[in-house]
Amino acid sequence: MASEQQPVVVTCTAPVNIAVIKYWGKRDEELILPINSSLSVTLHQHQLKTTTTAAISKDFTKDRIWLNGREEDVGQPRIQACLREIRRLARKRKSDGDEDALPLCLSYKVHVASVNNFPTAAGLASSAAGFACLACALARVYGVEGDLSEVARRGSGSACRSLYGGFVEWQMGQRADGKDSIAQQVAPESHWPELRVLILVVSAEKKLMGSTAGMQTSVETSALLRFRAKALVPARMAEMARCIRERDFQAFGQLTMKDSNQFHATCLDTFPPISYLSDTSQRVIRLVHRFNAHHGCTKVAYSFDAGPNAVIFALDDTVPEFVAAVQHSFPPEPNGDKFLQGLPVEPALLSDELKAALGTDPTPGGIRYIIATQVGPGPQVLDDPGAHLLGPDGLPKLAS
Amino acid sequence: MASEQQPVVVTCTAPVNIAVIKYWGKRDEELILPINSSLSVTLHQHQLKTTTTAAISKDFTKDRIWLNGREEDVGQPRIQACLREIRRLARKRKSDGDEDALPLCLSYKVHVASVNNFPTAAGLASSAAGFACLACALARVYGVEGDLSEVARRGSGSACRSLYGGFVEWQMGQRADGKDSIAQQVAPESHWPELRVLILVVSAEKKLMGSTAGMQTSVETSALLRFRAKALVPARMAEMARCIRERDFQAFGQLTMKDSNQFHATCLDTFPPISYLSDTSQRVIRLVHRFNAHHGCTKVAYSFDAGPNAVIFALDDTVPEFVAAVQHSFPPEPNGDKFLQGLPVEPALLSDELKAALGTDPTPGGIRYIIATQVGPGPQVLDDPGAHLLGPDGLPKLAS
Repeated sequence: MASEQQPVVVTCTAPVNIAVIKYWGKRDEELILPINSSLSVTLHQHQLKTTTTAAISKDFTKDRIWLNGREEDVGQPRIQACLREIRRLARKRKSDGDEDALPLCLSYKVHVASVNNFPTAAGLASSAAGFACLACALARVYGVEGDLSEVARRGSGSACRSLYGGFVEWQMGQRADGKDSIAQQVAPESHWPELRVLILVVSAEKKLMGSTAGMQTSVETSALLRFRAKALVPARMAEMARCIRERDFQAFGQLTMKDSNQFHATCLDTFPPISYLSDTSQRVIRLVHRFNAHHGCTKVAYSFDAGPNAVIFALDDTVPEFVAAVQHSFPPEPNGDKFLQGLPVEPALLSDELKAALGTDPTPGGIRYIIATQVGPGPQVLDDPGAHLLGPDGLPKLAS
Repeated sequence: MASEQQPVVVTCTAPVNIAVIKYWGKRDEELILPINSSLSVTLHQHQLKTTTTAAISKDFTKDRIWLNGREEDVGQPRIQACLREIRRLARKRKSDGDEDALPLCLSYKVHVASVNNFPTAAGLASSAAGFACLACALARVYGVEGDLSEVARRGSGSACRSLYGGFVEWQMGQRADGKDSIAQQVAPESHWPELRVLILVVSAEKKLMGSTAGMQTSVETSALLRFRAKALVPARMAEMARCIRERDFQAFGQLTMKDSNQFHATCLDTFPPISYLSDTSQRVIRLVHRFNAHHGCTKVAYSFDAGPNAVIFALDDTVPEFVAAVQHSFPPEPNGDKFLQGLPVEPALLSDELKAALGTDPTPGGIRYIIATQVGPGPQVLDDPGAHLLGPDGLPKLAS
């Protein structure tokens, strides 16, 4: 195959993010504009990431996409919205007279392959990492630079927050066209090096309502959600930014828990009601409050997204004892999963006082495993051609 | 024992009530004044009632009280508040020159015995029936007439709603002294004869936070609760009264479910969060919504108080099919309880379509038993001396 026939190929990775001030509800379904601002922590890609390869070639006859090795319908509205948006930006750049713009590429079809390094079973919102990664890979391959909030957001609202490392806010914006609804870094990943994140993966027993349908119903039916978005979130955004700036874990943890609870409260106020918290989630909530009560301060905080898994925030010196408390309350069952994954955690013994404070109702197997991670950087470009998920023929390497 | 030595003895019964617009939160802890009005359905005493005997005698040396056969501390603040209030009213009546007022009785000590005809395990708020019954028995024995809202309310806020049959609202009132915070009948028990109530008793697995402590924490920490009380409940009270007046089951059922959900949402927004709904409660919620979706209208509605048990409202012609749906989704386990208690329910077969609509995740033993009942009258005075729980010696008959 001659060199000029080879496709232009780019591979990027992007992180998962966990909102500590939650996004729930759109004011514009088409443009994916939120009813309130939100703020998230970007998780480290060593533990959780999406990798996406995009390739363009004049030989490709149509756009195609493979997710986790399986070809998917590229016609999905949100994928189409991202493609349309990136090509619009590329066209705009070209018409603005930028000589670096790749000639002809706008007419080329694109092949995309994307994989996650974490199981879907983890129930983590993979769409944020996925669409952030898609936006980055497409931008690179079509020669688009600058803020990609709008491209990622059109795929999945919270994806725009995965475009940056560290602590990121998604400003809701005011404009009808959404141009000011963008993600912005509050603090870089180096800002709070002691902060740790544990993902407690719960055995999910029930089908969950998807977040897109769920938040639409909430906006339509929950007066509490509308009140929260308008009257409560603005002050919470400012307070959370302060907590992060000042590395005030006490206040950060409390507000994180309160905002998670309030998000789930508005889900319950939705009609018909939405419930993402299982009995195991509730047990984790009680465990955290008992752990903190024992210590007389907020050493650990939980946050739950649209599923039963708990995301725990703690400073590094608290992690060993809290992990031991989790193992005490949820004795691991031999289910084939390694219980502790990710960053290494030192073993710790629980004092009898703490054991007594945690209560005596262990739930074997309630937590399948824990992923220990930390705050991490934004999307990365992989220069090693060996990292490409698509071969020189433009097809997935695994499938070729 | 000479006749004049015999104590004056009165026995009353009082009903349980279930709020369809929920009360949660006090604006005055001492006077038990609520932050919003509430509205309830009085349940029939054939299935659920408290029976209370009060006796006064110059021979009694101190106030004493027996609950379900066990002597309790009569010094409990709420019992004392009721006693103080009833004696104040009796004194007021006497000083107003009412010749019927019993002479001397104000100086007599009182003995009280009270029993429920339903197990505490049912997790039903027995304090409402209990304090309503105490208020009625004390009023009768001390010769107090008129509205007893204030006496009952001082024992337990929602007890004032158990003073009337049918459909009852507790007007929050505006006055600082609480004189206008009273219960009032919206419609008598005869108003909606087709209405049925099913109590689905769930196997409770966890300790629950008491409602007194819970609502105090909610008032202090939940901005959503304060918003609900101020901005949402007034319109809901008016709408619920309309639903009842017009016997509009569709709207009655929907608002009942929405208000239950919103109450539990404010519990979740409390910090630390309060969760009364178990996974089984959530399964009942899904069952009801699926049942209604299958029928294309609201045929059944749920309401949950400060516990996992479901209270179901339906019209009589829906009950057999819904009970069959409950048995299908929660196959009864042989646990010693008769599964269906109270009013007789005709057996019914489920269509294959309904079975399919309900889904295929039966939870054996999730529901321990069902109590079928209906709307009922307010407190009753029992004229039969054989009904007295206290003997001529002023001591519990069972214990004597």
